[in-house]
Amino acid sequence: METAFKRILDEISPVDRTPEAEGQAHLDNLTKPVGSLGRLEALALQLFLIQGGKPPQADPMRIYTVAGDHGVNAEGVSPYPQEVTRQMVLNFLADGAGINVLAKTVGAELFVVDAGCCGGTFDEHPALIQAKVAPGTANLAEGPAMTREQCLEALMLGVSLADRAHKDGVKVLGTGEMGISNTTPSTALYAAHLGLDPAGLTGPGAGLPEGSLAAKTAVIRRGLEANNQVVESGDPVDILAALGGLEIAALAGLILGGAKNRQLVCVDGFISTAAYLAAWKIHPAVKDYCLLSHASAEPGYSAVVQAMGLTPYLHLGFRLGEGTGAACAMFLVRAAANIYNQMATFASAGVSESR
Amino acid sequence: METAFKRILDEISPVDRTPEAEGQAHLDNLTKPVGSLGRLEALALQLFLIQGGKPPQADPMRIYTVAGDHGVNAEGVSPYPQEVTRQMVLNFLADGAGINVLAKTVGAELFVVDAGCCGGTFDEHPALIQAKVAPGTANLAEGPAMTREQCLEALMLGVSLADRAHKDGVKVLGTGEMGISNTTPSTALYAAHLGLDPAGLTGPGAGLPEGSLAAKTAVIRRGLEANNQVVESGDPVDILAALGGLEIAALAGLILGGAKNRQLVCVDGFISTAAYLAAWKIHPAVKDYCLLSHASAEPGYSAVVQAMGLTPYLHLGFRLGEGTGAACAMFLVRAAANIYNQMATFASAGVSESR
Repeated sequence: METAFKRILDEISPVDRTPEAEGQAHLDNLTKPVGSLGRLEALALQLFLIQGGKPPQADPMRIYTVAGDHGVNAEGVSPYPQEVTRQMVLNFLADGAGINVLAKTVGAELFVVDAGCCGGTFDEHPALIQAKVAPGTANLAEGPAMTREQCLEALMLGVSLADRAHKDGVKVLGTGEMGISNTTPSTALYAAHLGLDPAGLTGPGAGLPEGSLAAKTAVIRRGLEANNQVVESGDPVDILAALGGLEIAALAGLILGGAKNRQLVCVDGFISTAAYLAAWKIHPAVKDYCLLSHASAEPGYSAVVQAMGLTPYLHLGFRLGEGTGAACAMFLVRAAANIYNQMATFASAGVSESR
Repeated sequence: METAFKRILDEISPVDRTPEAEGQAHLDNLTKPVGSLGRLEALALQLFLIQGGKPPQADPMRIYTVAGDHGVNAEGVSPYPQEVTRQMVLNFLADGAGINVLAKTVGAELFVVDAGCCGGTFDEHPALIQAKVAPGTANLAEGPAMTREQCLEALMLGVSLADRAHKDGVKVLGTGEMGISNTTPSTALYAAHLGLDPAGLTGPGAGLPEGSLAAKTAVIRRGLEANNQVVESGDPVDILAALGGLEIAALAGLILGGAKNRQLVCVDGFISTAAYLAAWKIHPAVKDYCLLSHASAEPGYSAVVQAMGLTPYLHLGFRLGEGTGAACAMFLVRAAANIYNQMATFASAGVSESR
């Protein structure tokens, strides 16, 4: 597994910026004041560079909503019981969740992935990928959430999802997740990698009462202490194993696989961004292939993106996950590609440029 | 004209908030933590209330991009010659502009309206509505840009656009505009209505060099002085006539007509918001029917929306107008309606609620 994963990493490289001037010149020649479509233009250029300097293609698009359970749920860090992860997977398969509606609205294909739900396998379903690495993680407050081997298996699962999409011609990926209690491992990963105090990062997640936040913060502190040696080691795979989750590791793998395949990855919210950070620490070139879809309403998120030096595209107060923010950002990706490919130039339209 | 316009205003009323609790309860019963889709939920509720407490419908959608010229262009407030307004109308009709691409991307119908371009009529085109009130406005730096009669005619044109859409079943309207130099009248309207200093509001528009901003501000100050008596009178139609533009007045009429017809109006950027403010001063109930699509990158815009007590949905650095921001916001409107109508409830999906 170590060797196979190492081989994937060797195939990732930063985007080639050689065609950047050509892409920028094309955008500047379109019938609009230079730069007047703001971040949509930057997005078009990113897609153009990812795709090797060809007219950017946004479709087909695919979202993977990856589910996993968390041993740390035993510490009372969520108002929901762990069974809800499984119930929500069934809800995804029955087409009733937020991500079903938003994926359909934007025209992205949706696959649900069991990377680590508690309980046994699910009934087969065309939209379900059963790839359970383990039935939930161990309690990170008491030691590593996963073994390194489990973590690598989840990472490779994510790579395989990107590859499967690539084989189907998918140009743009979206990350989604479902896992009761998964703001806790995400916050632990942020604290470990960014050196931020958990107190400033811990939020209500799916709806923990204000009065329970201090206890949640204490659980995260315990997890950081229990896994202190690993954190100190600086090995990003070991840190992900110790503090992450199976769905988080799978999404980190999806991001690494997307970078390998030269796919744009729309990173969803608080949990997906933790996966992104983990992937970034494993291979920094992934940042050329990713965008932050939206600003999670989880209170720690703004400190996180500031520390990462990134700006999300959308600010709509979402705190649902599942890939719902990614689905909305995908509309912008399609809009950006269409702007690049379909607008007239000043010359072709006979419009005067500024004097 | 005065009587006909008065009759339109009499038909506008605030939304009936009686069904609000029912709509909110429905949203809270969907399989997601309460409020976790943030502003999308507020948007769904707004549409639900506008449509009288029925499952909200977002489609069909239509954008009107209204063009007009400005006598104040003679003062050198824009780097573009006035002919560009006409050239861009032709570009719209040839499907080559930003708004063509974005309207198509979101699936909104687009009509182009000549409310006041310089020069004569255009060749006929199925997407063009020829309704020229006058071939451009007078120079507002020297006196009223329009007569009250012209302004009323443009307002009634806008109402007729909303009515035409209503007849075609359109549920959601988008405002768009094209008019070289039209940040100048817009800024003058903001200054007059909000009591803000033009110096803090004046920006580069389509690309005026930094060094020319002081001169543009001075032109706006001259306009406010030349029309001081009108501004002091407080009559919103007279103020719109004195400081506005034909496309701005038509968009104010579109907003009033949309409110009358119970259509949601996605207000585009800097110029459209000036039309919205003008409509709001004419009939305050319009605010129940409008949303600010995006935050214009024009530097004065944040002060304007703060003074109006509103928050735009998108922050993408657009400063193009044409309705491009409205087109992007329309995706969110459709997403909000679909969330309301298509998600499962906790009970129907068998998902446990929080403990």
